[in-house]
Amino acid sequence: MKNNIKITEVLLTNLSSIGADAQGGLTRLLFDENWKQAQETLKASFEDAGLSAAYDAAGNLIGSVVGSEHPEETVMTGSHVDTVRNGGTLDGQYGILAGFLAIQRLLEKHGTPKRSLSVISFAEEEGSRFPFAFWGSKNLVSSVDREILRDVADKDGVSFPQAMKEAGFDFSAKADAPRTDIVAFVEAHIEQGAVLEHLDKQIGVVTAIAGQKRYNVRLIGEANHAGTTPMSLRRDALEGASLCIDTLLREAKRLGDPLVLTFGKLEPKPNIVNVVPGEVSFTVDTRHTDAASLDGFAQYVESTIRSIADDLDLQVEIDNWMDESPVPMDSGLIELLSDVCSEQGIDYHVMHSGAGHDSQILAPKIPTAMLFIPSIKGISHNPAEGSKMEDLVAGIDVLEAALYQLAYT
Amino acid sequence: MKNNIKITEVLLTNLSSIGADAQGGLTRLLFDENWKQAQETLKASFEDAGLSAAYDAAGNLIGSVVGSEHPEETVMTGSHVDTVRNGGTLDGQYGILAGFLAIQRLLEKHGTPKRSLSVISFAEEEGSRFPFAFWGSKNLVSSVDREILRDVADKDGVSFPQAMKEAGFDFSAKADAPRTDIVAFVEAHIEQGAVLEHLDKQIGVVTAIAGQKRYNVRLIGEANHAGTTPMSLRRDALEGASLCIDTLLREAKRLGDPLVLTFGKLEPKPNIVNVVPGEVSFTVDTRHTDAASLDGFAQYVESTIRSIADDLDLQVEIDNWMDESPVPMDSGLIELLSDVCSEQGIDYHVMHSGAGHDSQILAPKIPTAMLFIPSIKGISHNPAEGSKMEDLVAGIDVLEAALYQLAYT
Repeated sequence: MKNNIKITEVLLTNLSSIGADAQGGLTRLLFDENWKQAQETLKASFEDAGLSAAYDAAGNLIGSVVGSEHPEETVMTGSHVDTVRNGGTLDGQYGILAGFLAIQRLLEKHGTPKRSLSVISFAEEEGSRFPFAFWGSKNLVSSVDREILRDVADKDGVSFPQAMKEAGFDFSAKADAPRTDIVAFVEAHIEQGAVLEHLDKQIGVVTAIAGQKRYNVRLIGEANHAGTTPMSLRRDALEGASLCIDTLLREAKRLGDPLVLTFGKLEPKPNIVNVVPGEVSFTVDTRHTDAASLDGFAQYVESTIRSIADDLDLQVEIDNWMDESPVPMDSGLIELLSDVCSEQGIDYHVMHSGAGHDSQILAPKIPTAMLFIPSIKGISHNPAEGSKMEDLVAGIDVLEAALYQLAYT
Repeated sequence: MKNNIKITEVLLTNLSSIGADAQGGLTRLLFDENWKQAQETLKASFEDAGLSAAYDAAGNLIGSVVGSEHPEETVMTGSHVDTVRNGGTLDGQYGILAGFLAIQRLLEKHGTPKRSLSVISFAEEEGSRFPFAFWGSKNLVSSVDREILRDVADKDGVSFPQAMKEAGFDFSAKADAPRTDIVAFVEAHIEQGAVLEHLDKQIGVVTAIAGQKRYNVRLIGEANHAGTTPMSLRRDALEGASLCIDTLLREAKRLGDPLVLTFGKLEPKPNIVNVVPGEVSFTVDTRHTDAASLDGFAQYVESTIRSIADDLDLQVEIDNWMDESPVPMDSGLIELLSDVCSEQGIDYHVMHSGAGHDSQILAPKIPTAMLFIPSIKGISHNPAEGSKMEDLVAGIDVLEAALYQLAYT
């Protein structure tokens, strides 16, 4: 146990120096120099540990050991190597390191597995450099149409094909065929929320990744002088927005978990102290693990906004620009992870994920599961992101036991 | 009548070309070149009409005729020559032109008045160039402490003393003594609101200028991930702000005229679609013509915000950075203006002003009154500002009759 803590600490520290930014965080974007260095460091570590290590055509790095009885069946673990800009040191790479360490220990203790066993360092999940997320996981299990990325550029004007070339990959090369050999995928990840900490649980077993819908809403009234316009002659767009936010948050709170509703962005116009706001734009982000419940609540959101706009004589525009369905995890793997926690005497919590993960791309095609470890104060996408060392290790222990069941028995 | 319309049109058109800006509006700021040219144009017009015309030490331009029986008593009319940036052609200068035309007609019809009669083109009212409003009217009736303006600069870094010097005035010169000879001041102005248009009235007789209080409010909660933070674990600052806005606007609407309440500016942080707002800053602007009612409502505003913040576990900061008392107009002059309207068969409305005016500076020291003419759609501080020609003329007619009563009888 103590030795494992040491190994985890050293690996995490080394990897976290690659992409360390001036603001005390980690910035490692798809195909940039830090990304390349991190993947190469992992490749060398995988090879040192006796795994074969290779990139696929998309830039995913996969470290593998071939199974002795069912080499054609692969049990896979891992997560993504990229980060958000100025992110923390755990989001993504913890899952790669956890998978790598678990496999190392299994090889040491039990030798060659019956099924092939792989750890993957997904090329990209966050969508931080290019407006395309899950490049890594999507390429693993499906045929991504690369042409839609040919003219896409990052904020410095570097095109996707150019960035790929600079990292040593060929945009024009034939993509790999979707993998069909993977019989199970288990991803370890930090929670990025405060539920486990709040409940004082060490492991979260994920049942589903929430679906989400996002909207841009624009309410249009009339900008007027704050002093000379009586209340009765106003068409105040901020009054409308506030009433929408109030009404909808009250209902979301009443319905409660796993529904969430967020008004993250709001901009009045002209946004001047002595002018009644003539226009307000705001965003809506709502998530639920059940598709029908999400659809139902989204309909309520839309009809409530329209009704309030109508009552206050405001024009309204509602644009539903994101609509992702909930993704359930594999019930057999949920049970396996729960059983492992019980056997190890770990206090766990069965929960959903409100954030998106590579697992949601794999789950519709491959039996997939996730385990969470607690995030200190729920902080993530921030240099202050952290987890307790004993929780980091507990996650690896649970992952190791689950991979043993999947690959060795 | 037709001749007067012609004179009004020509003068208004000429004066409106001085400071015409690229955005189709008028921009004429204290002591700038356009300001100087406008004042000089008015000075020449005053002199052509047989008035003596002179600047005071602050830059106010005053055109006068000395009274035959009570030369030591002055009846004054006028308004301000400066504009907001990209303003309209009526806010301010209509009152100067109306006063000038009324006096011209009185001199033509009735010769020398018994009391001295003056039209003033106030140097500044809007506070658009320097953070100091009512420079003109304040200097007329009180001793302004100039030292507080010595280090004040405009957005281009030009200091107040330098700007004054460029316009031909001496910052260091001894200020004029406050005027004590003015026995009545009557200001004509556009309404800058839509009340008269809404009621289909041609003249507004102003009873009081509303007092106003302005606040900056900051609510501080906790920024959290929109997906991973259950509703029950949130401290959403925008939820707090929306509830404040809703609750307070509902009460302001219930109380109704002459109370107004505006939340003009609101800024969430970090203002990102998938982050629960950890902080929201917003402004409060509330006005009323009665000091006790304004104080009472302001107390309700403050206590409501504190109570909502408390309920939602948000920190709150409330800064009351503007606190201006309501200013009643002179009851005798209100009656005079009302009588004149009745005699002329003009459909008038007794009302308050929600906007600030030079009259509020003069009223505590001198019997003061204001008359409004309708603003088309209530638009002001905007190139689209406008009034019907027949209303512009009606305002001059009423002003002429009132000045006759005050200076000739």
